[in-house]
Amino acid sequence: MSPAPGLPDTPPPSERPSRVAIERVSPEVDAGRFAAKRIAGDRVEVRATIFADGHEVLAAEVLYRHDGAGAWSRAPMQLLGNDRWEGAFDVPEPGRFEYTVEAWVDRYASWLERLDKRHAAGQDLAVEFQVGARLLASAAAGAGKPGASGLRGAASQLPGLDPEAGVALAHAVADEACRYQDKGAVAAYARVLALDVERERAGFGAWYEFFPRSFGKDGAHGSLADAAEMLPYVRSMGFDVVYLPPIHPIGISNRKGPNNTLEPGPADPGSPWAIGSSHGGHCAIHPELGTLDDFRGFRAKAEELDLEIALDIAFQCSPDHPWVTEHPEWFEHLPDGSIRHAENPPKKYEDIVPFDFECEDWEALWEALLGVVTFWARQGVRIFRVDNPHTKPFPFWEWLIAAVRREYPDAIFLAEAFTRPAVLHHLAKLGFSQSYNYFAWRNTSQELSTYVNELMTEPGADYLRPNFWPNTPDILTGYLQSGGRPAFMVRLVLAATLAGSYGIYGPAFELCEDRPREPGSEEYLDSEKYQLRQWDLANPWSLREFIARVNAIRHTSPAFRNHATLRFHPVDNDRLLCYSRSLPDGGETVVVVVNLDPRFKQSGYLELDPEVVRVEPGGMYQAHDLLGGGRYLWQGSRNYVELDPATTPAHIFLLRTKHRTEREFEYFL
Amino acid sequence: MSPAPGLPDTPPPSERPSRVAIERVSPEVDAGRFAAKRIAGDRVEVRATIFADGHEVLAAEVLYRHDGAGAWSRAPMQLLGNDRWEGAFDVPEPGRFEYTVEAWVDRYASWLERLDKRHAAGQDLAVEFQVGARLLASAAAGAGKPGASGLRGAASQLPGLDPEAGVALAHAVADEACRYQDKGAVAAYARVLALDVERERAGFGAWYEFFPRSFGKDGAHGSLADAAEMLPYVRSMGFDVVYLPPIHPIGISNRKGPNNTLEPGPADPGSPWAIGSSHGGHCAIHPELGTLDDFRGFRAKAEELDLEIALDIAFQCSPDHPWVTEHPEWFEHLPDGSIRHAENPPKKYEDIVPFDFECEDWEALWEALLGVVTFWARQGVRIFRVDNPHTKPFPFWEWLIAAVRREYPDAIFLAEAFTRPAVLHHLAKLGFSQSYNYFAWRNTSQELSTYVNELMTEPGADYLRPNFWPNTPDILTGYLQSGGRPAFMVRLVLAATLAGSYGIYGPAFELCEDRPREPGSEEYLDSEKYQLRQWDLANPWSLREFIARVNAIRHTSPAFRNHATLRFHPVDNDRLLCYSRSLPDGGETVVVVVNLDPRFKQSGYLELDPEVVRVEPGGMYQAHDLLGGGRYLWQGSRNYVELDPATTPAHIFLLRTKHRTEREFEYFL
Repeated sequence: MSPAPGLPDTPPPSERPSRVAIERVSPEVDAGRFAAKRIAGDRVEVRATIFADGHEVLAAEVLYRHDGAGAWSRAPMQLLGNDRWEGAFDVPEPGRFEYTVEAWVDRYASWLERLDKRHAAGQDLAVEFQVGARLLASAAAGAGKPGASGLRGAASQLPGLDPEAGVALAHAVADEACRYQDKGAVAAYARVLALDVERERAGFGAWYEFFPRSFGKDGAHGSLADAAEMLPYVRSMGFDVVYLPPIHPIGISNRKGPNNTLEPGPADPGSPWAIGSSHGGHCAIHPELGTLDDFRGFRAKAEELDLEIALDIAFQCSPDHPWVTEHPEWFEHLPDGSIRHAENPPKKYEDIVPFDFECEDWEALWEALLGVVTFWARQGVRIFRVDNPHTKPFPFWEWLIAAVRREYPDAIFLAEAFTRPAVLHHLAKLGFSQSYNYFAWRNTSQELSTYVNELMTEPGADYLRPNFWPNTPDILTGYLQSGGRPAFMVRLVLAATLAGSYGIYGPAFELCEDRPREPGSEEYLDSEKYQLRQWDLANPWSLREFIARVNAIRHTSPAFRNHATLRFHPVDNDRLLCYSRSLPDGGETVVVVVNLDPRFKQSGYLELDPEVVRVEPGGMYQAHDLLGGGRYLWQGSRNYVELDPATTPAHIFLLRTKHRTEREFEYFL
Repeated sequence: MSPAPGLPDTPPPSERPSRVAIERVSPEVDAGRFAAKRIAGDRVEVRATIFADGHEVLAAEVLYRHDGAGAWSRAPMQLLGNDRWEGAFDVPEPGRFEYTVEAWVDRYASWLERLDKRHAAGQDLAVEFQVGARLLASAAAGAGKPGASGLRGAASQLPGLDPEAGVALAHAVADEACRYQDKGAVAAYARVLALDVERERAGFGAWYEFFPRSFGKDGAHGSLADAAEMLPYVRSMGFDVVYLPPIHPIGISNRKGPNNTLEPGPADPGSPWAIGSSHGGHCAIHPELGTLDDFRGFRAKAEELDLEIALDIAFQCSPDHPWVTEHPEWFEHLPDGSIRHAENPPKKYEDIVPFDFECEDWEALWEALLGVVTFWARQGVRIFRVDNPHTKPFPFWEWLIAAVRREYPDAIFLAEAFTRPAVLHHLAKLGFSQSYNYFAWRNTSQELSTYVNELMTEPGADYLRPNFWPNTPDILTGYLQSGGRPAFMVRLVLAATLAGSYGIYGPAFELCEDRPREPGSEEYLDSEKYQLRQWDLANPWSLREFIARVNAIRHTSPAFRNHATLRFHPVDNDRLLCYSRSLPDGGETVVVVVNLDPRFKQSGYLELDPEVVRVEPGGMYQAHDLLGGGRYLWQGSRNYVELDPATTPAHIFLLRTKHRTEREFEYFL
């Protein structure tokens, strides 16, 4: 245990310490213990509070480099005001970056400021010119040949000049003088900080989850080859990622029957999360789904369609998993010789045994589990949806994700962290690219805006990327159970337009499957986790077309990418939720309005922030509804909206602020 | 520059890492770079966010020790909820303390919780009893002799017992089993944190500043002996600290005349902050004030009256200071050979030359300045009011304060940091006990409540202690200039009841001196900084009695000490400001109401938080005005108040919630 910052000794510090203080550098996660996150192509804005005693002018730079090696690059920082400074650098490609901040008293700039004030006050400048000449001579000494002669010349000229000419010369050589002067004691921020840059899919993508086994011919168990025929359908809805529940052999012992019962029939397929049988474990494929070759075929088909595959990483075993007998030391044994099952007393999960991450042989276990991920990475998989990461040790995940990324820097990990806030955040800090979260249970405008603002606010904004799922095989919310087809449309639009990443579990979602196992339950009746289902994809009731339209808007409108700023706007009817996404520097702005009431028509006045609308007060502009197709002429910040859930419960407006008026015609005078 | 946290190597970490995460420890200032502050006698509440994977029960302790040496003491932490834990330790005496947090998975408690759940569900406990017996046997091995036999006995008994008896035994030995069990991998918080504990005066005291030289007989220059005769007067108003502007020889060169003019008459005394003449420097006493013996006499008289002396530490020189010739290397010389004067171009302070803290001989300069403080400490001074600390390097103050405290742990430093927020906060972090601040310029109820809430909120609350001054020799605010006598009463009550430490510059304050040098200026006309003033202390207009009453209330009511919680309450008239100070655990509550309008009577309804009033809704209680003497019967949280500035613009109510009703009499049935 290292000691606390001790009392300094009576003798002053051994080196002249810098007078500049550097504090509150952002982004910074837990005092630099964890890396902040960004997406390749981002511009990273680094801010810091920087100040010194007295009134002198300061200068500051961001230092940054890729992969923790090589020379530091430097970007100048500017004073924003109130001692807050900002500098920026670009991260064009994925990888680990490092950055920190340095600052110093800018003697030449301080002198120049003093000179200007004296000059403006009409004071005598003779002595100041001599002071400046000294500074220039010292800068000349620090400069290389090309810079030196100009500075040396200015140094000798300055004392002889009249006030006007001297001040002009002092300014003319300022850039070089500041660059080459002796900076004195430079202050370095206390820490070098880390930044993990990932590819765009880590922060932006639409996910579609389905059970391959439900797509066999005529109700038979589906294979990966059958499932491959689903891919054009998924692609037609505009999804980017296809996520498959575990595709490994399913155990026989204690296999679950339909609706999570304990007495399965002989034909019941069991839960895909009960991984492992005599056919193999986490690196094998369930025989009824096919072979590794079939998997490769599935992947090839997906790639053709520009779909990326996400696999489920569920680190748990059926009692029939080969490792249970090959590596009994990786499981906890009770005094009666049995293996401890997964449990949350008094509940027991009979078909699953957990790994004992604290066993004596933990190093071999960790290596074996890393081997599972790298095996599938070698099969071309780069997206891993991790099941229940919060029930495995945190240091394990930090180690595993870093180890995978060293070999596969484009690997993306989604944490299924339906757990307490501190744990959800901690998993994100450990390296997970994205996290499931509490979106599914936020329904009112107040709940949604509060929650989204919370996610977008520091410190979480620098490391936690939400992936919004309105449903999953485990989650059928009360809102979806009771709101009918409009409720599904509402939750889809919210998920797709509030978060960079979102996903649905289909076809249950697009077919508006809303029957719970029992009243008050959030589980699906006849859940696909325990049985095959047949889905009528051609049902005219399906939201397929609607979803396709929403995903198309996400793809064509850059405002839905990471760089956009999300902002909520007041509406005088709290059943309507209104928010905008704007690109910086005058780029595109979209305004989304959602009627959260799935039953009744709701109307109200939006109060858009004029900064977002970017028009003069009272100015006219066009709001083009990309979803419904309508075009509305709006004026100023206050505008009327009406949404009927019976048709479409949402607008996604693209604002066209360059609405022409007759004043813009040449003949108008 | 140390590298960023690197990617772990592919092999797992060399030791089995702990599963427990410890985050967000509070208090913590700038990731442990600086010490938090407390007052001797405080109970330090340490909070942390602590969690692990899975559902097991955790245990956590605060580790703490005095003076950074010796064994750690330990205090248990309790779970507050949502993964937030709290533990506490006492700091009975001043000094540097250290603390940190440790946590681990409590295996026995986790097992006990599981056992209870299974027992409640009527499940078979035989195997769990065997698991428990293992845990007890292992704890017995870890226990010393006295604990061991009980645990060993329980271990052998448990498997043979019936469920009821077994569960009872498991609980009976729980304390010992938890204490002696193998804790496995214990997580330690990443940092050991520091805490500076100071004596009470660092956080609680009423200050009175005056110029000794103004109290000579018949208009002559006053001496310290004359000034000593002021002390009973100061004490009669209930002040704790007497603060004297610099008492050192005043320079002749460029001496300032009345009202900061440049042409002094031969009798003009000059500014006490232009320190040093042929009579000596920072360790000498101005001849007209007397000798070091006179100073000792002054101090003795003050001590008799239970008044403590605060001296001004102004690290700057008159051009006549002996060091200017003895140590020219400590000053910056211009190319023309002259010494650079203090300046803020185009303004110049002709009577002052600053030290060059960046000179080549800086170590000797720093030592000499430390010598000034320790010289006065040897004369018995323990409170130092530091002039303009923000114009001297931060590392200098951090070093100096720590060095003084090593010899004089009871030394208190007040920073005159009228500067930008980041600098004000930084000086407090460096070790200053207290800070001047922006109180003087906060006038409306909105401004005052926002500012005070900001000061009380983390992170500042852990290191920045405000000292509220309604006026100083440099500051006569517009509010005081225009509001007449009631304005002075308002600002006094605010200062004295909002902050633990407050002060006034008198007799200008109690005599309601309100004439500025010129319209729009915040400087006093005929400022005592540049001339002697004669004050009519017996003027019936004086606020002497009023101040005495307010200070008496501060002294007798513990709610005005540090431990009290300050809270603002809404009033339906924003000219009235209402706040309460409550001691924890049902201790005393005072409610202050101030009419901020110095001209007109204002009335309104207070809306007191029922938690603060501590009565049932609709319950009756007495509000006893300690200032005006009135007693009011109040009911519930909403009560009427009316304040006339012509009499007294404030109430200081002590709430007596034990108001008796007839229901409490024995014969009431």
